[in-house]
Amino acid sequence: MLKCQICKATYPDVFRLKCDCGGLLDVVNEFEKPLEDLLNSDYLDIRRYLNLLPVNQKTLPSLTPPITPVIERKIEGMKVLFKLEYLMPSGSFKDRGTYVTVAKLKEEGIKEISLDSSGNAAISFALFGKAENIRVHVFIPKHTSEGKKKLLRLLKAEIHEIDGSRMEVHEKAQEFKGATYVSHWYNPYFLEGTKLTAYEAFEQIGEVEYVIIPTGSGSLFLGLYKGFKELERFGKIKKIPKLIAVQAKGFESLGKRSKEKNMLGEGIAIPEPPRKEQIKSALKESKGVHISVSEEETKKALEELRSMGFIVEATSAVGYAGFKLLLKKELLKENSKTLMPLTGSGFKSLTL
Amino acid sequence: MLKCQICKATYPDVFRLKCDCGGLLDVVNEFEKPLEDLLNSDYLDIRRYLNLLPVNQKTLPSLTPPITPVIERKIEGMKVLFKLEYLMPSGSFKDRGTYVTVAKLKEEGIKEISLDSSGNAAISFALFGKAENIRVHVFIPKHTSEGKKKLLRLLKAEIHEIDGSRMEVHEKAQEFKGATYVSHWYNPYFLEGTKLTAYEAFEQIGEVEYVIIPTGSGSLFLGLYKGFKELERFGKIKKIPKLIAVQAKGFESLGKRSKEKNMLGEGIAIPEPPRKEQIKSALKESKGVHISVSEEETKKALEELRSMGFIVEATSAVGYAGFKLLLKKELLKENSKTLMPLTGSGFKSLTL
Repeated sequence: MLKCQICKATYPDVFRLKCDCGGLLDVVNEFEKPLEDLLNSDYLDIRRYLNLLPVNQKTLPSLTPPITPVIERKIEGMKVLFKLEYLMPSGSFKDRGTYVTVAKLKEEGIKEISLDSSGNAAISFALFGKAENIRVHVFIPKHTSEGKKKLLRLLKAEIHEIDGSRMEVHEKAQEFKGATYVSHWYNPYFLEGTKLTAYEAFEQIGEVEYVIIPTGSGSLFLGLYKGFKELERFGKIKKIPKLIAVQAKGFESLGKRSKEKNMLGEGIAIPEPPRKEQIKSALKESKGVHISVSEEETKKALEELRSMGFIVEATSAVGYAGFKLLLKKELLKENSKTLMPLTGSGFKSLTL
Repeated sequence: MLKCQICKATYPDVFRLKCDCGGLLDVVNEFEKPLEDLLNSDYLDIRRYLNLLPVNQKTLPSLTPPITPVIERKIEGMKVLFKLEYLMPSGSFKDRGTYVTVAKLKEEGIKEISLDSSGNAAISFALFGKAENIRVHVFIPKHTSEGKKKLLRLLKAEIHEIDGSRMEVHEKAQEFKGATYVSHWYNPYFLEGTKLTAYEAFEQIGEVEYVIIPTGSGSLFLGLYKGFKELERFGKIKKIPKLIAVQAKGFESLGKRSKEKNMLGEGIAIPEPPRKEQIKSALKESKGVHISVSEEETKKALEELRSMGFIVEATSAVGYAGFKLLLKKELLKENSKTLMPLTGSGFKSLTL
């Protein structure tokens, strides 16, 4: 069931971006069995969690995302649990949200869609669209990396390059007629996909104290929040972990905007995310914080990640840069466990 | 235990490329429990299969490969089961072999290694080496794709570019002094890693009639053979599937060498693989065949794979091109199940 955040109207589980009143929608799930009975251990991939999703299991996308591994490293006395979300068919965590969204699109026979993206969501939808014969219009900023553009061309996406800010790209996509607009900024089903990161992590490593998340539109942040809330409702965790939203300096939406601009966070350079208030309230509920990091800090974090064997793109390093900053400020509890999703593959930006 | 193919001498499970007599070595495993008791279902990654490997579980590499998903597609009446081996930390199936090899290197405290590779094995060892503080010398052909070279530089591998054929690269690496040579062409532990593809596939999709494998040095082919042989010994499958080795025209090692050269199979352009006789005997035992495919067939296969949502490199498409050729020649049983590992990510060659 979908429920409006403003007028509380409800809708059945059909594909829908917003309420008739213009309000944002959330998926509300009722689970009538314990988690153990819902997990499908016959599957060693994302389908293990199908019963937690509002989808018709007969119209699933053919591309099945893996369960991503978790790598534990001890860093300055802390256990950091890197979750390799970049090991996905399109090279980013977005595939989780795309998987659920495309399942809904297939249920309804939708064959032509449009979306705006800094790159990763565009590639993800282009890939899943290609595999399902769905025509995909992608609106991307002109400065998107050449590797990502090349991929979009290879996948035969209809590319609309916009010479403007990320917000202008978003406006152009919304104005476009003739295709179903599937923006992951609004789309409530996208978060059903990204919530599975929390379920997987729980099965892999149990409870954690912190989760550190590069945050732009909040499509990963809010998914993780939702996943942990559900795990709490299932009685699997005592309380949800502290969620830490890390943003790029100059593109903060949750705190004061810095003058200095960190241009390495292309995936999260979203000054006005539609779900901003929802992110703030999840932050507050989890007793988390938001911080922002500089370009230099991001660059250094990227190198450190590489030396641990993680070939990720710069936006992924924003989270780790945030972790280092919190360490420096002594804001993390000693000997604590921190979950850190690594969001996007570094392979796609090799041409940079 | 290691056993020599020629003089039958045996060695304990230490890192070793060849027998003192010069013969090739195989790992011989004795399993004293049924498979169910050996699988570790606490893990949702490669560690699920640790008890099947001759490694000390206390010195495992920190980078843990995922269980790769299997995607089923119906193609001209056949069930094809694509296994996405390219969704690995370094972007190719090689990470399986590297994982086991590096576990052995760590057991023995080896800190500097050398190897020769067309690219993927080099990147894999460079990555795992970086994560474990092992210095890695890679010998690669000069014509290796720019994307792969860039990655090797990023990973701070010691790059030795050789202006010569793949066999000349191999010779140069063998001559190099001052580091432990870990060639996956000889290294018996490499096959322990790649055999896990068979175990995973068995758990995911049960028995199959055919397995189609791009084959150069045989590091995947022989691993799969070994995995299925072990599954047969465990009583899990009645007989091993027919193994089909697909090679690039002009680089055949198993059959007559074509004059025409397929330059798209850089990963398998190995005219004289040291384990050639072993490949031939596995082919015969499984009642399989070897075939070779042209550049045009490979290119077409690559496009078809992409349209199914698989962003792979050209070498991976050699297997699918072989499948299409066998279909055309009506050499596959109707309604049969074929396992097709997709070996390398297309992201790394984006700069081409």
